[in-house]
Amino acid sequence: MVRCMKLGPVVRASGRALSTAAGRQQRRALAAETADQDQVTRKNFADVQRERKEQAKNSVLISCPSKINEKKFLKHLSRHGEVANHFFFDSHGVHALVEFVNTESIISLLSATKVPDNEDTCVLPFKSRFIKVKSQELDLHHVKCTPQTSVSINQLLKKLSGAKNIVDQAHIILDELQLTEESIRVRYLVSSLVSDIATAYFPEATVHLYGSSVNSFGKMGCDLDLFLNLDSLKDVSGKPASSFVTEYWMRQVSSGRVAQQKVLSVIGECIESFGPGCTEVHKILSARCPLVRFYHQSAGLHCDLTADNEIALRTSELLYIFGNIDSRVRPLVFTLRCWARVHGITSSVSGHWITNFSLTTMILFFLQKRNSPVIPTLDQLKNLAGKNDKRIIEDNDCTFVSDLSKIKPLENTEPLDTLLIEFMEFYGTFDFSKNCIDIRKGVEKNKPDSSPLYIQNPFEQSLNISKNVNKCQLERFVHLVQEGSWTLQKQASQPLEKGKEHWGLASILFPTDSDGLFRSKKRLDANRLGSILDSLKVSNNNRKTTTQKQTKH
Amino acid sequence: MVRCMKLGPVVRASGRALSTAAGRQQRRALAAETADQDQVTRKNFADVQRERKEQAKNSVLISCPSKINEKKFLKHLSRHGEVANHFFFDSHGVHALVEFVNTESIISLLSATKVPDNEDTCVLPFKSRFIKVKSQELDLHHVKCTPQTSVSINQLLKKLSGAKNIVDQAHIILDELQLTEESIRVRYLVSSLVSDIATAYFPEATVHLYGSSVNSFGKMGCDLDLFLNLDSLKDVSGKPASSFVTEYWMRQVSSGRVAQQKVLSVIGECIESFGPGCTEVHKILSARCPLVRFYHQSAGLHCDLTADNEIALRTSELLYIFGNIDSRVRPLVFTLRCWARVHGITSSVSGHWITNFSLTTMILFFLQKRNSPVIPTLDQLKNLAGKNDKRIIEDNDCTFVSDLSKIKPLENTEPLDTLLIEFMEFYGTFDFSKNCIDIRKGVEKNKPDSSPLYIQNPFEQSLNISKNVNKCQLERFVHLVQEGSWTLQKQASQPLEKGKEHWGLASILFPTDSDGLFRSKKRLDANRLGSILDSLKVSNNNRKTTTQKQTKH
Repeated sequence: MVRCMKLGPVVRASGRALSTAAGRQQRRALAAETADQDQVTRKNFADVQRERKEQAKNSVLISCPSKINEKKFLKHLSRHGEVANHFFFDSHGVHALVEFVNTESIISLLSATKVPDNEDTCVLPFKSRFIKVKSQELDLHHVKCTPQTSVSINQLLKKLSGAKNIVDQAHIILDELQLTEESIRVRYLVSSLVSDIATAYFPEATVHLYGSSVNSFGKMGCDLDLFLNLDSLKDVSGKPASSFVTEYWMRQVSSGRVAQQKVLSVIGECIESFGPGCTEVHKILSARCPLVRFYHQSAGLHCDLTADNEIALRTSELLYIFGNIDSRVRPLVFTLRCWARVHGITSSVSGHWITNFSLTTMILFFLQKRNSPVIPTLDQLKNLAGKNDKRIIEDNDCTFVSDLSKIKPLENTEPLDTLLIEFMEFYGTFDFSKNCIDIRKGVEKNKPDSSPLYIQNPFEQSLNISKNVNKCQLERFVHLVQEGSWTLQKQASQPLEKGKEHWGLASILFPTDSDGLFRSKKRLDANRLGSILDSLKVSNNNRKTTTQKQTKH
Repeated sequence: MVRCMKLGPVVRASGRALSTAAGRQQRRALAAETADQDQVTRKNFADVQRERKEQAKNSVLISCPSKINEKKFLKHLSRHGEVANHFFFDSHGVHALVEFVNTESIISLLSATKVPDNEDTCVLPFKSRFIKVKSQELDLHHVKCTPQTSVSINQLLKKLSGAKNIVDQAHIILDELQLTEESIRVRYLVSSLVSDIATAYFPEATVHLYGSSVNSFGKMGCDLDLFLNLDSLKDVSGKPASSFVTEYWMRQVSSGRVAQQKVLSVIGECIESFGPGCTEVHKILSARCPLVRFYHQSAGLHCDLTADNEIALRTSELLYIFGNIDSRVRPLVFTLRCWARVHGITSSVSGHWITNFSLTTMILFFLQKRNSPVIPTLDQLKNLAGKNDKRIIEDNDCTFVSDLSKIKPLENTEPLDTLLIEFMEFYGTFDFSKNCIDIRKGVEKNKPDSSPLYIQNPFEQSLNISKNVNKCQLERFVHLVQEGSWTLQKQASQPLEKGKEHWGLASILFPTDSDGLFRSKKRLDANRLGSILDSLKVSNNNRKTTTQKQTKH
């Protein structure tokens, strides 16, 4: 199976995506060798989005028999034009994502595609780029599927124990948990299919991915956050060429919120009634940010579609830039998120826990606060902004440079393990009672209110993104960073014992007495830990709520 | 104001549609002169539908200021291409229906049309061919609007009193109550706008008008019945060119009914949320024939949209053929429907009353039963059918000739007044206790069950279209035809008294003692009658229910 993919957010030195188990191993070896150089991209966020969207437009999702003959399948597809890429994955049955070189191939393929005419059942005749292939000519063996979830925790722990050092371990965590090339492609395709539904009524509307799918910090299995931008519609202008002006007759509503609710209601109804592969559709229109939630069964993705979420998209781009400014940022964030999840600092359900976004912002703030900073402040990024980068959204200044090449690398060269320990030291002694965290200025400020944890929203500056966190959760966090710092320092000072089961990062991935969650046992066996860490992969059961939604970027 | 219209179902000798009051008068004079020759068309049903749909596709609905300068308005529009037709009408504000010669003009006009950008309100940005025109350059006078409802009953009675004879009176009734050219155009445009909504998701779907809007028996203000045909979608075929077959991934449902419900639900949601000019949207999906009911305020039309109603469309064509075989059919049907409505034989609400469709079928049956028949039987029309006329719908043979020129005129030359009296004689002595009415064979048959009135459905032959009628209503009908026959014969035998207020047909358009509805007064004053007859025009308040729906063709 030949894959030759144009890479997006996660570009690797090899220039190839390798998603099989063997590929993973090779990639990791590569990552360790070239650590701190290869794990970032220099592509601008908008370019990545554009390329990925183009790829997705030229792609189809195909439900296949599990023993399909791959060679003949490709030959059949090539009747309609050159196939640029393809891979198989399993989600409630085997599926192929096939990208053609030209859009005409899609038109050709669909024109040769039939409406099912099973005598016994009726179909809802909604045509999309999600099709089924049937064939009598099957192979003996199942087709090889790329994984759509992370490796099991046992495998992860095994890999950690075989690593060279803590830095290597952090890269393993990143490599095993981050979105694969294939997962990214599936996400953009689902977005493109939703876009087809939306643009049927609103041809100028655009559907954007935001949040973890695109901010460079997404884990395998994370939710797909989409938003529908209808604002581009309003750009239609034209000087009146005569004393007559024509305007579309459009339904007027009392507020933008009502407009969003109505549009989402119709789109939700479509997805519910005939959205191919979509189940569990819920219209949550009375939420603060109205949304349609559904599960794309065939892609294995939980999706949230909102309307008008420009600031969230801008925040995603900001995180993307921070994630790609320096190669240490992403392994550091993935490692700390993994650690936080194990200890119940973050959670997939809403509540008083620290969110992933808050935790990431704390890490970024820490990196800005080094004596020699690892990353610039948001204000510095704003100062680098060109004319086209200017963006005011709902009176909030969301301006910052989008051209990554304009951001010069900073001088800090501290190794990853040092940064990890220093992060824990930093927040172990941080004066949360007085200070507020602000990545715009990169300096502590006096808290504007008495929230236990105050992290200023980088764009909506009067908002605290961690308003939900209570005193108890903050105290647990402080206690855990103090303990983590102590454990890691001890690990770092000890010589590496080959064969020792859990050393280095693995030692802080074990819940301790102080976690509250697990008071009864000093140590948990691997199975127990496994079940906890498994929840890192897909948060299918306890899905985040709308409140949390607001803070996902 | 120049109008030059291509005429559809109602083609008049002049080749022009004249819808103003003056026009009506001219047209009626014309009708009287050329009676029995000019009131029928020789265009086939399918051709009329096709032409009308094309017209509608090239048309836009424009909301205008009431004092718009017509000349400048047209000049403005002509920037986008040649205007083929236009007229103004008033329905919750002044509107223009403008037909362009070419579709490109519509595209050009819409590309110059803005999305409203009122700061104070939000709009649902759904673009359609319903637009608004704004202008500072207004005239002193209101623009001239074509009527969208019939004349008042007082005017009708006045016109009847001024007629030459009963035949002339019947033509006046036809002329005053039938759909005008403009009303037909508005109906096709609304259908076309609904089609735009439906084809956004189902590009091969077609929306058809059926029932009174197209069967040649429609009254001004009657409901607009539409159905969405999704079946054409299933025709996509193709021989498998390889051992692989591709099929669209489509949601499967347990029955065609569920599929209809889901499709109508989505379209209903769209119409409700942003259907321009649509109000009072109700999804009546649990009805036997699921439908979406709405009021197109700007067209002044109550609309019912169902899915898959092929037989109803076929029935509409059959009625259209009967209405256009002989010029006496339509004035006879309009006169008798008017009479029946006055006496409460038919009603706009569902119940035990005889429906318009049943009454029309009874009239057709009577015309087939004349010694020398006025119209052929359905079986005779079937025998004239060509290859392309063959139509089996849900196992029902719906075959009949569609080419009107193949139907040779029959020899009966009885005048309209004779037919009117003979109709009443016929049903005054008809043995309803034994016999069933069947326009397929054109002969009485034994009733298959004990329903008081049994009229066999011409296509679904096991069904009785007048199953709803109870004994009491049938007895009232028989009593009223007997009385009507007696009154009319008396009128026919008397010399015409010039200046006498209510003579001829007017004499049977007065409710009598026997009507039950009006026992207390021997005679009603004109105002009272007016209010009753007004209900003939638009049945806005007591709208027909779904049960009745089934029998509207």
